[in-house]
Amino acid sequence: MSIAVIYGSTRPNGNTETLTKLAIENIEVDSIYLNDFTINSIEDRRHEEEGFPIVEDDYDAILSRMMQHETFIFATPIYWYSMSGQMKNFVDRWSQTMKDARFKDFKERMSHKKAYVIAVGGDSPTIKGLPLIQQFTYIFDFFGLSFEGYIIGEANKPGDIYNDQQAINAAVQLRKKLISL
Amino acid sequence: MSIAVIYGSTRPNGNTETLTKLAIENIEVDSIYLNDFTINSIEDRRHEEEGFPIVEDDYDAILSRMMQHETFIFATPIYWYSMSGQMKNFVDRWSQTMKDARFKDFKERMSHKKAYVIAVGGDSPTIKGLPLIQQFTYIFDFFGLSFEGYIIGEANKPGDIYNDQQAINAAVQLRKKLISL
Amino acid sequence: MSIAVIYGSTRPNGNTETLTKLAIENIEVDSIYLNDFTINSIEDRRHEEEGFPIVEDDYDAILSRMMQHETFIFATPIYWYSMSGQMKNFVDRWSQTMKDARFKDFKERMSHKKAYVIAVGGDSPTIKGLPLIQQFTYIFDFFGLSFEGYIIGEANKPGDIYNDQQAINAAVQLRKKLISL
Amino acid sequence: MSIAVIYGSTRPNGNTETLTKLAIENIEVDSIYLNDFTINSIEDRRHEEEGFPIVEDDYDAILSRMMQHETFIFATPIYWYSMSGQMKNFVDRWSQTMKDARFKDFKERMSHKKAYVIAVGGDSPTIKGLPLIQQFTYIFDFFGLSFEGYIIGEANKPGDIYNDQQAINAAVQLRKKLISL
Repeated sequence: MSIAVIYGSTRPNGNTETLTKLAIENIEVDSIYLNDFTINSIEDRRHEEEGFPIVEDDYDAILSRMMQHETFIFATPIYWYSMSGQMKNFVDRWSQTMKDARFKDFKERMSHKKAYVIAVGGDSPTIKGLPLIQQFTYIFDFFGLSFEGYIIGEANKPGDIYNDQQAINAAVQLRKKLISL
Repeated sequence: MSIAVIYGSTRPNGNTETLTKLAIENIEVDSIYLNDFTINSIEDRRHEEEGFPIVEDDYDAILSRMMQHETFIFATPIYWYSMSGQMKNFVDRWSQTMKDARFKDFKERMSHKKAYVIAVGGDSPTIKGLPLIQQFTYIFDFFGLSFEGYIIGEANKPGDIYNDQQAINAAVQLRKKLISL
Repeated sequence: MSIAVIYGSTRPNGNTETLTKLAIENIEVDSIYLNDFTINSIEDRRHEEEGFPIVEDDYDAILSRMMQHETFIFATPIYWYSMSGQMKNFVDRWSQTMKDARFKDFKERMSHKKAYVIAVGGDSPTIKGLPLIQQFTYIFDFFGLSFEGYIIGEANKPGDIYNDQQAINAAVQLRKKLISL
Repeated sequence: MSIAVIYGSTRPNGNTETLTKLAIENIEVDSIYLNDFTINSIEDRRHEEEGFPIVEDDYDAILSRMMQHETFIFATPIYWYSMSGQMKNFVDRWSQTMKDARFKDFKERMSHKKAYVIAVGGDSPTIKGLPLIQQFTYIFDFFGLSFEGYIIGEANKPGDIYNDQQAINAAVQLRKKLISL
């Protein structure tokens, strides 16, 4: 059961990454740092006859890479009570992929995947991060993709995450689950 | 009481725009189409000594333009159960503005504004759009900005919005409120 | 298509009732005022061998009466950001009905019903009433019952609801829908 | 810092109680089992001149007992995606207490309390229990009462809770926090 970790962070070694790395310690994963790539915002052409044009950026390659795996971990800082804009741009493009002849079984393939979410925020994330979890739930439900669990961590300054013992415990616990996949 | 409408749509004349235009018919507003501008994703430098570098894109100009108004209407299609990535990128950059000496009373000024949200989606938006409304609530609460109301419309194909009589009525009702500002 | 209105209010002629009556004006409905009946809280015996004892109160009669109809309108004041305790007690007892041999196709029959929710509260109900709507969504989803729509009204003192033009409009709109059933 | 645990369960030794007892092991608390008492549903008389009549049940005594403590743990099974009807009836009556001359500083006193929530459900509670957490958030915010944290456990049959390692860990973690109060 191979794992892709999709990072939405915009600085290296942030709290989200730290927490996620605890959950995947010594587990082989494919780490995709969205910030290292160019992923344009979607232009909605769903209703135009000619459909979506091919976009010259890194999105298709990233998506293909992600789809080689069975389990996804979406690891995002909580920016303004939702996923980062970088990650949102990536997710928005899925609408285009669903119309893309080159990925024609995309939705069906997604329905066989499993997903986890790891999200870290600074402003009462265990409360104010709940709409983000609900949003991910709807996204995964759309595909029939199994939402296996999530961890919400609280942290602001670099390193803060180590003070959130509940999140740390949950990451250790998640690791046991991932190893047994 | 001047009004800025911030559009997060990525195609012209979509359902979100149609619904919004009903609400502002014959009212003078400043219409900001985010899709017409280049707004980079944020790079989180909140915790670095040198802070955020100045970014060469259209964000600062757009933000300044928005801040000249007292009432904001955020008009966004619902993409994957939240605002569009374009709008999210714009909002994410507010974190940078809060550290920007050139906008040093940004948070304080925001606390005097009023906001409305108009969101249109195709997949049970009056239910599955609720996390988006909660996200906006937390965003506005952060600033102490007054959340005056929202309209959720249901539409998929261009023109569909005219079939959502409840949303149309709500737009007409909102217009009365905006005129009386 | 016959309609049952289940009122969770605890005073007659309150704002919830007023708003609901606009939606059903001149439509024949079966009005069930939960407050007129004795409905005990559930005692959870799901996991005991002998199961639930028969409870000597009005619940069974009320449930049977409701089940004769195809469309339900749950009309509740928002007390502490959810349905009234009276209505919650009624709903909680559904767990008992699911184990009751006398109602053995209860879940299946529920899956053919349609439901509306009308909820009125005094403290920012269009925002703080959203968890209530989400709770109803999960309840209806459990049964596969179709959630056809909801109206949230804002009111505090008796008669206040007439000042919520958006809720009044929505009730008038709902009435058109109910007539066409 | 003395602690009151308010149990909304309707059967003894259920999963909610088991999980809660892990969190308070060897800590002196005042355990209030709502199911052992008679607490009537509220009759809304907020807007009548003569106000609320005195109700002959156990509510006032229970409320007084709870208010002697500084920290509250609300421990409820998740029934139909919210707190049990028994607990909801108890909470609903707070509206009456706010108008009760005998408890005239009720709201002010509540603002100095701290609260935790422990909730256990059988149907994807870490997702479908989130509206309950949001509801508690609004309740506590109303009073300015500090919401210190929550644990959501997943369990159906008696004893199931021991299989939810994440909830067990969280209870152990909470216990450390409670001891240090």
